[in-house]
Amino acid sequence: MREVAVIGIGMSKWGECWRSSLRNLFVEAAREALKDAGVSKIDSLVVGCMSGGLFNGQEHIGPLCADYLGMKGIPATRVESACASGGVAFRTGYLEVASGASNFVMVAGVEKMTDVSGDQATRALAAASDFEYEAYNGITFPGLYAMIARAHMERYGTTREQLALVSVKNHDNGLKNPRAQFHLKLDVNAVLRSVMVADPLHLLDCSPITDGAAALILCPVEEARRLGKPVIKIRGIGHATDCLALAQRAELTRFEAAARAAEKAYGMAGVGPKEIDFAEVHDCFSIAEICAVEALGFCEAGQGGKFTQEGHTALGGSKPINTSGGLKSKGHPVGASGVAQIVELVEQLRGTAGQRQLPKARRGLAQIMGGTCASSVVSILEKA
Amino acid sequence: MREVAVIGIGMSKWGECWRSSLRNLFVEAAREALKDAGVSKIDSLVVGCMSGGLFNGQEHIGPLCADYLGMKGIPATRVESACASGGVAFRTGYLEVASGASNFVMVAGVEKMTDVSGDQATRALAAASDFEYEAYNGITFPGLYAMIARAHMERYGTTREQLALVSVKNHDNGLKNPRAQFHLKLDVNAVLRSVMVADPLHLLDCSPITDGAAALILCPVEEARRLGKPVIKIRGIGHATDCLALAQRAELTRFEAAARAAEKAYGMAGVGPKEIDFAEVHDCFSIAEICAVEALGFCEAGQGGKFTQEGHTALGGSKPINTSGGLKSKGHPVGASGVAQIVELVEQLRGTAGQRQLPKARRGLAQIMGGTCASSVVSILEKA
Repeated sequence: MREVAVIGIGMSKWGECWRSSLRNLFVEAAREALKDAGVSKIDSLVVGCMSGGLFNGQEHIGPLCADYLGMKGIPATRVESACASGGVAFRTGYLEVASGASNFVMVAGVEKMTDVSGDQATRALAAASDFEYEAYNGITFPGLYAMIARAHMERYGTTREQLALVSVKNHDNGLKNPRAQFHLKLDVNAVLRSVMVADPLHLLDCSPITDGAAALILCPVEEARRLGKPVIKIRGIGHATDCLALAQRAELTRFEAAARAAEKAYGMAGVGPKEIDFAEVHDCFSIAEICAVEALGFCEAGQGGKFTQEGHTALGGSKPINTSGGLKSKGHPVGASGVAQIVELVEQLRGTAGQRQLPKARRGLAQIMGGTCASSVVSILEKA
Repeated sequence: MREVAVIGIGMSKWGECWRSSLRNLFVEAAREALKDAGVSKIDSLVVGCMSGGLFNGQEHIGPLCADYLGMKGIPATRVESACASGGVAFRTGYLEVASGASNFVMVAGVEKMTDVSGDQATRALAAASDFEYEAYNGITFPGLYAMIARAHMERYGTTREQLALVSVKNHDNGLKNPRAQFHLKLDVNAVLRSVMVADPLHLLDCSPITDGAAALILCPVEEARRLGKPVIKIRGIGHATDCLALAQRAELTRFEAAARAAEKAYGMAGVGPKEIDFAEVHDCFSIAEICAVEALGFCEAGQGGKFTQEGHTALGGSKPINTSGGLKSKGHPVGASGVAQIVELVEQLRGTAGQRQLPKARRGLAQIMGGTCASSVVSILEKA
């Protein structure tokens, strides 16, 4: 397989974008990525989108996006893996370049979530759970993650304050990211005083509903060199799955799919968690980030809360997590999030992350997941 | 890229499967494919599904399918391109094996369409059109294809009888296929006497609503040889797109995406339309097969009706089309159809197509498309 580089990144405005439809959001991000890469043509497009059907009454997302970008005709594939759709799109695009089938591939993610009411959006998101056994019986994602949080607190003594500190830290980072949906300075009390959504999770433990898109240009490393681009290499990608229904898991607090995906990505890159300088992880709820840092091997199982409280995951810590602000502050247009994580990795590796730039950023990791981690993709990028 | 073979095929029962849900249909087809291939493990799964969201309230189709097959953990990717989803899944799985990323990949397609009312199904299918400009204004797919049919009749003198002959021929073939949803002997009068759906298309010009799944096992050709399997090689795959909205096309009757996809597939295989012994094409409506045989170069533009009437596309003709019965008689579970076309190609190439076996079947072609051909995948398979 050929070595693959990311040579272009782009994002649309993220937030409640009342004046943009799904296709507009995609085009906004895609044009920025093309401009950033300095290329005007692509051979193929892969788009991650969770539910164009339930959010917009629109499937057939691939050709729609290609056409509105002015690239009618090219192969355009939409992939879906709930909130991990963007990560799966990244792997699919990577394989297309690595195989030699295409030279320049755009990987994008998009979700337009505010075309429906909050209630309808909650039901659309519940399509990421096992519909027949979970959503059908009335549970929604805050409820599912509340059970994971409760189990983590019972088993490992993780505290309510430790959960809140994830949100506080990610909003601190988001304050330094002009792309973030919410620029809020929080403290633990603000999180604990916010309305209860599903005990023990408050509103400020939850990521928001967001409209947005993100896009990347991938090509062989040799092409990137020829174009004189900074070479950001894809060193490892792992993709793994688990059962959808939480009730079928042996252990609620272990994100097995993320752990397996990480194992594959580490193996492919020939590095371990210690060799990762920073990471973007899937913090759809505060507890999710805690379980994710454990699954990735950044700390021992059960120690994610303590690891956060001790400041390791902060911008100045030993293992900065979600320097972009994460899904919590940057926003979470579900199909786009996995692609936007790669945008942040590239910004940090290029040294263009502005106020949130890390002094040491040679190798970064992105972990995205769908549902309660029934699917996960872990990617490792490195500055050549 | 490595050479890739199809070594296993499977299909669930197709029809109105009231006792099966999406996951059951998938498992039924997948188990048959594994058994046929004689393998018990796969490295990765790619599933084509058009709208788990609108038909079943279920997204996150990849891990759901992997888990219920007893293969929890493997990478599982769902791809969507409306009714071409199965074809895009085939290409995605092909690239995964060709690249060297995986050795044994299952490519499947599934759609469970009868969980909703006929009216809701029609609206779900309309998500394959440009929602904002077509479905939103009330047009559905029979209406869109009726406009294509009318344009073809006006421009080329194609007759109502020639359209009907497509349905008659495909139902004749379906009578010889135990897997077909409908076993009906039709004549032209039966088609013309059936209820009008969208002038000039009658009910018997239209493919049905179907529940069903199909599955394939792909591996490198050298592995197929090692396992002592009949080697059915993937010689060419092309994937192309067009604008979704019919109103934006320069020419209603030319399926540009199918023509481009065919050009790529022919180029990759190093053959032309004359070297194709038989084909499965996308006959969602009778007019669609006529436009498809033209786009594939089996006859001149505008001559598809005459080509049919002269018997070229019949089982005993010079270019047998839809020996399986096509979407018309076999059924059209939209995400599964592109995969089931490959099942028929493999049966013919292996010489196991029973009553409908062609005497000469060395090289077959499959053409699937989404919407009014806004996306299309063309694949060429050959007996080694």
